[in-house]
Order: sequence, then C-alpha cells, then structure tokens
Amino acid sequence: MSSENLRIIVIGGGAGGISAASTSKSVAPGASVTVFTEFEDVAYSPCGIPFVLGKEIPDFERLFLQTPEHYASIGIDLRLKTAVTAIDLKGRTVSVGPEKFPWDRLIIATGFEYEKPELPGVDLEGIHYVKNIRRAMEFDKVLDTVKKVVVMAATPLGIEITGNLAHRGLETHLVDEGAWLMSEVADPDIMEPVQKSLEEEGAVIHFGVKVLEFRGEGGKLRSVVTTGGEIECDVAVIATHKKPNNRISREAGVEIGSTGGIVVDDHMRTSVKDVYAAGDCAEVVHGVTDIPIQGLSGSHAYSQGRVAGANAGGVERAYDPVFVPWGMVGGQVQIGGVSLGETLHKALGIPHFVAAATGISRARYYPGVSRIRVKLIVDPETHRVLGAQMSGGEGIKERADFLAFSIKRGARIEDFAWMENVYSPPIGALMEPIALAAQAGLAELAKKK
Amino acid sequence: MSSENLRIIVIGGGAGGISAASTSKSVAPGASVTVFTEFEDVAYSPCGIPFVLGKEIPDFERLFLQTPEHYASIGIDLRLKTAVTAIDLKGRTVSVGPEKFPWDRLIIATGFEYEKPELPGVDLEGIHYVKNIRRAMEFDKVLDTVKKVVVMAATPLGIEITGNLAHRGLETHLVDEGAWLMSEVADPDIMEPVQKSLEEEGAVIHFGVKVLEFRGEGGKLRSVVTTGGEIECDVAVIATHKKPNNRISREAGVEIGSTGGIVVDDHMRTSVKDVYAAGDCAEVVHGVTDIPIQGLSGSHAYSQGRVAGANAGGVERAYDPVFVPWGMVGGQVQIGGVSLGETLHKALGIPHFVAAATGISRARYYPGVSRIRVKLIVDPETHRVLGAQMSGGEGIKERADFLAFSIKRGARIEDFAWMENVYSPPIGALMEPIALAAQAGLAELAKKK
Repeated sequence: MSSENLRIIVIGGGAGGISAASTSKSVAPGASVTVFTEFEDVAYSPCGIPFVLGKEIPDFERLFLQTPEHYASIGIDLRLKTAVTAIDLKGRTVSVGPEKFPWDRLIIATGFEYEKPELPGVDLEGIHYVKNIRRAMEFDKVLDTVKKVVVMAATPLGIEITGNLAHRGLETHLVDEGAWLMSEVADPDIMEPVQKSLEEEGAVIHFGVKVLEFRGEGGKLRSVVTTGGEIECDVAVIATHKKPNNRISREAGVEIGSTGGIVVDDHMRTSVKDVYAAGDCAEVVHGVTDIPIQGLSGSHAYSQGRVAGANAGGVERAYDPVFVPWGMVGGQVQIGGVSLGETLHKALGIPHFVAAATGISRARYYPGVSRIRVKLIVDPETHRVLGAQMSGGEGIKERADFLAFSIKRGARIEDFAWMENVYSPPIGALMEPIALAAQAGLAELAKKK
Repeated sequence: MSSENLRIIVIGGGAGGISAASTSKSVAPGASVTVFTEFEDVAYSPCGIPFVLGKEIPDFERLFLQTPEHYASIGIDLRLKTAVTAIDLKGRTVSVGPEKFPWDRLIIATGFEYEKPELPGVDLEGIHYVKNIRRAMEFDKVLDTVKKVVVMAATPLGIEITGNLAHRGLETHLVDEGAWLMSEVADPDIMEPVQKSLEEEGAVIHFGVKVLEFRGEGGKLRSVVTTGGEIECDVAVIATHKKPNNRISREAGVEIGSTGGIVVDDHMRTSVKDVYAAGDCAEVVHGVTDIPIQGLSGSHAYSQGRVAGANAGGVERAYDPVFVPWGMVGGQVQIGGVSLGETLHKALGIPHFVAAATGISRARYYPGVSRIRVKLIVDPETHRVLGAQMSGGEGIKERADFLAFSIKRGARIEDFAWMENVYSPPIGALMEPIALAAQAGLAELAKKK
C-alpha cells in the first residue's frame, strides 16, 4: 500500500502518541494521521506537574510545549475530548461511541493510570491523583485551602509530590509499606540522603505501614487509617504503581503480556498485523535480564512512539532492548541509576558484587561541590557492569546516561577504573567518582585473591 | 631486584610526582621513596589559583590537599626547596648542587612552565605568571593595589584569569593573536558564548594582535604595546603555552620528543632503562591521531604518575593512548570536548563531517535550564565519532567524560542518535543534546543520498 492513501490512527495524545503521529506524518506525508485523545490537552509535560504544585515552577502554562493548532499546521488531525471506546481488529476500525473510524495502521498509545487501591473510602472527596494537567490545576487551588496532606506510596511520583508539597509549606506525610524510599527498585544507602532531605523540608515519613482505609465525614476525606495509626489530613495523593491503560486493547484481543503491558516486537508491532503500540501501555525487553518491563519514562515513550510511527508510515526502524537510565530529584538530592540496583540483583538471585565509592562533583574547595555516591553492580565472572545506582548534588543524569550507554556495550569495571576524565575545579574533580567506584571494586577483588 | 632495598627517586612534587611516589610506596612498601621539589609546597591544587584570585574561593589555604607531614607518615622522604640540578644516567644518581643521591629507579615529573615570550621588557616588575601558589599569594596582594591588567594569550589559563580578574572588578584586557578564544584548539562557535560572557563581566578582548613590547618606567610595567596599539596597565599576566620543564633531562641525555616532552612508552618508561616520566614533562600518544601530545590536565598527570610509580615499584601497569576529555569555565559558560574540534580536523586535513545541535540541560520550563551545544566530529566512512566540542551552563564535564570513553571504544553517531537518556524535569530534558546532535548528523547524511 502506498503511503499516499494510508489511514493511520493513533489512540492517545501523550508523549508516545504524539511522537508516533508526528513521525508517521513526517515519513509518510501523504498519509492521513488522526490522533484521538479523551483529554482536553496534548503536548504538555505531565512530569512537570509536581514542581508547579511545589511552586518551583510559577504556572501550569509553562508545561505546554505545543498548541493543538501546531498539529493541524503539520497536517495531523487531532481530536481532543474524544475517547476511543472500542477497537475492531477485524473490521479495522476504532469506535468513538457509535461512530466508527477506519484505519490501515493503528498505533495504540493509551498510557497508564496510577493504580486505584481497593480500599474503603477511596472515592471520598479530597483524594487526588497527579497526572492530568486540568485536574492538577484544580488540585493546586485546593492546596491553597488545606494544611495537611497524606501521600500514599514512596514511588518516584510519591517522593516528588512529598518534597514539593512540604516545600510549599504543607504538613506532608508520606506513607509506604517498604522499609525505605522506593524500596522495590532502589538501594537503601542511595535513598538515605533523599529521606534526610525530605525530612529537612518538613515531611514526615511513615515506613512499613499499610493503608487500611480512607476515613471521611460527609463524603469528605478526614484521615488516612494505616497499620501504624490514623493520620489526620485534608487531602491525600495516591501515587501507587503505574498501571497500563489497556482495557480496550484487551477487549479487542490484542495480546497483553505478564506486566499488563501490550506485547510488542522490536518494531513496536503488537500481536496483530498493522497494529503498533508505544509508551506506558506497552512492555519492552529489558537489556540486562531479557525480561519484559513496563512503566518507563516519557523519554522512552517518545522514542517508542518514533519507532512505531516510522514503521506504521512505511519506514523501517527498530527499538533496542532497554537498559533504563533513570534519575530524579527527591528533596534536594539527585538520585539515579541504570537497570537494577544491588537490592534487586540480590532479590532476583543474579550473581554480582558491588563496586562503590563516594567522590565529589567539583574540586573539594570549589563552591557548590557535592558528594557523589556511585555503586556499580558487577558480574563476578566477566567483570561487566550490570547496573548502577547513584546519589549526589549534580551530574547524576549525565552519569546515568553514560553508564547506560556503556553497560549496553558490555563495559567492564576495568574500563571505568582507568577512564580519562575532565579535571577543572569549578566543574570536575581530579578523579571521576565512577572511576573511584570501579577502582574500589578492583581493590576488593585483589584482596580476595 | 627485590623491592626491599629499591631506591626510588622522584623529581617533582606536582600531581605526577606525588602520585608516582605514593603509588611506588604502596606497591613496594620496602622501597625507599624520595621526592625532590625545588618549591616550598606540595600537594596543592594549582588549578584552583585563578579562582582564589577571582575571589570565587575565599583563601589559598583551601587549595592544600595534604600536609608534608602526611607524606612522612606514609614513609615518603619529601625534600622541599631542593632543586635537582643534574641527572647522571650512568652513575645512576641525581645531583642537588654538590650532593649526589643514588637511585635504582628514577621518575621524572618536572612539569611545565608557561613559555616566557622573547620580548623587550619581559623582566619588568609587574609581569606575572600564575602557577606557583606562593607567587600567587604575593600576586593576590599586588592585585589589591592595582586597577588595570593585561592578560597575554587566550589559552585556557588566560581565559580563566581574565574571567576571574574581571569578576574581581579589575579592568582586564585579554590580548591574543587568534581570531577567537583558544583558536588553536577550540571552534569559534563554541567559544562565542564564552567571549560574550567575559565581555559581560567587563573584560576587553583584543583579537588578532601580537604583543610587541612590555613598556616600563623605572623598572616597573606601565603598558603593553601590541600591533593593535598600546594598552596601559599596572600588571600583566603571561598565560602562553605550557612548555615542558626538561632542561636537566635533556642535558642528561633522556630522549626528548617532537613536542619538547620526554618520550615514554606505554609503561611511562623513558629511553633510559629504569627511568620513568609522568605528567606535563612527558609526551603521550593521542588515541585518535596516533601523534604524540603534551600539556594535558592534572588528572592526566595524576594517572600517569600512578602508572610510572607502579612500574618503578615492580608492579606492571600500562597507560593507554589518550582521548583527552577536557572542560573548563570561561566567564559563566562551561565549555569542553574530546580530542580535536572541527577547526583542527580541517587544519590537519582529516576527512570529517560535523553533526551538531543545540539542546537543553533540563526541561525547558525548569529553573536553571541552559542551552547545551554539542558538535560531534564524525568520520564520513565509518560514522565513528572522532571528536566533540560543547558549550553550556551545566553538565559539560560529564558529557566530555562520556564521549571520551565512547569514542575510545569506536562509538558511531548511530549509537548516540538512539541512545536512552534520563528524563526528569529538574535534571534532564526529554532528549539528550548528544542524541540530538547525532540525529541532526544522520538527517544531513540522509538528505545527501
């Protein structure tokens, strides 16, 4: 089929859907590209919302990256407030209520929701999710009228929200079942400075407690009841796991994987011919463990959208297994890493040892210098680095990108131990912290011989 | 020879000499290790001096990293204010005036000087070099009494001095023969924001002019006469090329290379058995062009010292060809790169094309976001990246380290174009600027097909 009369439909207007649509249109200018989204907006940065709530960023308007008119101008038919209610794989249409739209290529980019806990009182007024910008604008106004907040779950979003609401001056409680922050993915020593920083901002963290009930009065939230006691509050934010938004795909018969994400191959093709998926609704292969994972970053969604959009438009492009560089700010501390940390390697029974050191980000005497903690998780047989976790005051994102790139290409601790590095007092120390961690690992190995 | 009675002598107490001595002592605890330095101090950071002069760092004391007593405590015999006047390669001794000291292994780490220009008036009072900390302390006091400074040569040091003295409130003139800052090593588009920043700090930059004479009155500097006119001043700083300090090595018959640096092999061995060299007095192989180069960073000196010290102590260690990640701050702008830039590739006639883009360091709306310009110099045949140059507000050192590591391992622009990156509004943008540069390069190539 020539791209001249190709009808491409994209479901979802987030990073995955928008990049898919833009790429399809760019590789197949003659195709008709239609994007359906149930929401009022596209092309904004949901990741920026916690920081507007924390008043780090002065207003929500800044989070918009493009106007809907922009997409019209590049020839994309953007349908806002238009929820696709069903997919017909045989008839090759999508339904919007009674109306049907035909497609030759379909790209599913329906994203995720934060999992709604099955708990009494979960529908009370005062319980919020932080994801959609319109709801966030409303929530921001509510926050002006309240004093006490409970944040449920020390996930990345939960930590960002806690830090920002504490920074805003609210009494903020973070409630989590784990023994430390982000205990399912991060190592305790990496998260410790974040915890300290959140507490310095005034947040109260409740570890090892389960939420039992949201308790209200006249339909309005009044407290959160946990195994550790009852916490009075005016509002609560639920920041639980990201759950793929795959109801209509499942109902249509698109194959769903073990993570709840849509199964795709290395071209972002689903189990159904001419149907692609991208972003948080899909699962992709993890480069280190070879298992499917789901719920990555907006950057991943964007890249997957590009691959899906190119292939849907007739230009072949592949998507590699992911090594997942990640990073974020919790309180005033930057943390990040690549793939899995020490805790998960242990939990999964993957043979490993840890090469770790604490270095500095600038010359010791230079203003703004901060400690940089680097942990490399290393294969004891090959000395290849399998994963990394870091904390520090600056430069964590760049180091995570570097390590992900190198780990993907099989770098060993010997490579990092003797790496060259920039030395200049205002921007870099004599010895790069990654090199120090690798050297410490080699020194440990030498002792054992 | 057992390390028990090995006599190791190190000439020089800078980064190369001190790391060599420490490493020798650590791998061969029974050896006697003696360090001779003509200066009063060791183990301070000369690279920090410009920033103390600029009052970014409050005092010189902070630049000291270790006391001389520390070295005594780890068994190193440190001889301050003790200039080695000659090396006897046959008799295997060094001379300090009439006294002779025998060695079984000799490590030469005599560093560099800034080249003294052969110009009238160059010995006038008021002409300074910035390298030794005691002289810098004196110069700092002089600066309290003066108003106008001329800095000779827009080298990295010249730029740091210019920015810092302008920041200190002095009328600062920078005089250079080139058409842009660091024109011998950096690209004009990369240096442009630095120039702008220096000018914003109040510095006056005189491009394309040669210094003809230092003019004085009663033995004191009064002006610098250039091909572009005479500039009145109270003091001048000479920040010309780094010249290896190899008089005694040359006189002794140690082989000196084309750069003026001591020739060493990949074990930092000189042409003479049992004699090693490390740091700015030596020349090493450049990984991209295979030619010898000299005058790198304190970090390079430190690593070379470690290799020389290990081998001298009987533990084999090799030093790889260098890819030279570099970075610095000029005015308020960070610049950096790896290996050679576009200008030098052109000048050397190396086939290449440029893949360049300007990205951002954080989300576009996040406070502190800065533009990051990335230029990748690419081999048109293999698509391997040969070098890079960058400018920006943050994260330049980490990106230079990353690129040096990857370029050394043969990374191609295709690898960078589809790299995964961290996305988190306060610390990283949706698309990594390095990836954007690589993508721009691929798009250019696609157009040409």
